[in-house]
Amino acid sequence: MKIYEFKGFPNPSRVRIALAEKGLIDQVSFISVNVPEGEHREPTFLAKNPWGTVPVLELDDGMVISECTAITEYIDHLDGQPSLTGRTARARAIIHMMQRRAESGLLDAATDYFHHATPGLGPKLELNPNKAWGEARGERVGWTLRQFDAVLAQTPYLAGDVFSVADITAFVGLGFAEFAKIAIPEGLTHIDAWRRRIAERPSVSAA
Amino acid sequence: MKIYEFKGFPNPSRVRIALAEKGLIDQVSFISVNVPEGEHREPTFLAKNPWGTVPVLELDDGMVISECTAITEYIDHLDGQPSLTGRTARARAIIHMMQRRAESGLLDAATDYFHHATPGLGPKLELNPNKAWGEARGERVGWTLRQFDAVLAQTPYLAGDVFSVADITAFVGLGFAEFAKIAIPEGLTHIDAWRRRIAERPSVSAA
Repeated sequence: MKIYEFKGFPNPSRVRIALAEKGLIDQVSFISVNVPEGEHREPTFLAKNPWGTVPVLELDDGMVISECTAITEYIDHLDGQPSLTGRTARARAIIHMMQRRAESGLLDAATDYFHHATPGLGPKLELNPNKAWGEARGERVGWTLRQFDAVLAQTPYLAGDVFSVADITAFVGLGFAEFAKIAIPEGLTHIDAWRRRIAERPSVSAA
Repeated sequence: MKIYEFKGFPNPSRVRIALAEKGLIDQVSFISVNVPEGEHREPTFLAKNPWGTVPVLELDDGMVISECTAITEYIDHLDGQPSLTGRTARARAIIHMMQRRAESGLLDAATDYFHHATPGLGPKLELNPNKAWGEARGERVGWTLRQFDAVLAQTPYLAGDVFSVADITAFVGLGFAEFAKIAIPEGLTHIDAWRRRIAERPSVSAA
């Protein structure tokens, strides 16, 4: 397997953590795409992924998969023993619900803030910034974190008793929100405890 | 099972089509939430789903699941024979990739256009419209449809040879884009043929 990515960026980090959780990181060749220089918008990369996003998973037969949720589904089902995305209908439902909330309200919202309310990747790449929209998305990050704090008052992980892909997405999203200097609400003690728990996982410290 | 929804709105339609595909629609009690009057933002509903969205699936033991992707995962795995979300790692990956693209670039984009670039649900419910953002999202709908047309030039369905949840999302998204009067690019012949194929499914004509 090959993965095209830019190491340290939030979506590539999600996939690296998932790979480490599954013990698969040594089976992947990582190929760097220079996103800060716009390489993801050049014809060579767009031929592989017309959506122009990283990471991209390329299988040995040339099949290409983008979108972290999809790449994680693949990684998690390769051994027939899904441990990150749920085994039962009920587990799958809760995990996918929290995964979507962590994407739309936290990581994607923080990314929108970064691209629209800050200089982002600079004027060559940020073509249509909309500051008011970016700021609204920054407020959404705070709202989502308060909701997640209430969830984590009840259960150790976002989707219940077991670590899942939703925790990966939210953990990376929170780190990126801080990087982008979004105001994080004070007093989210359950988020703080959860974050320490996630940070201790070998998959996370290695990513 | 109960589903809280507002019939005819796009996300509830996605779940109704998935239920019909799985032969489960008669096992669900539908409860109407008056979204145009703001009932989804009242304390009674927010106690059930703090995110304030419909549809919401409530199981007999009280467990509540929101987000269409999550509800569909549940519905599709109930019989242990997933037919909408893929059985193999590879099928799951392609379907989730196209599902995410259909959500973010088509249905969610059309919804953003509706809420931000048109009067949407009216001034009582549309509290922070951002017209420029809504218009950018409307352009994204056209971009996504052109990409999907290229995909459908190669395969009969968005994720390959088999109908999937990604087709449901995109079909509902295209219908909503037209409802919101987003300019649809001309000459998308593969989209047109695909749309006729989807519309002929009994699950779709019943929804």
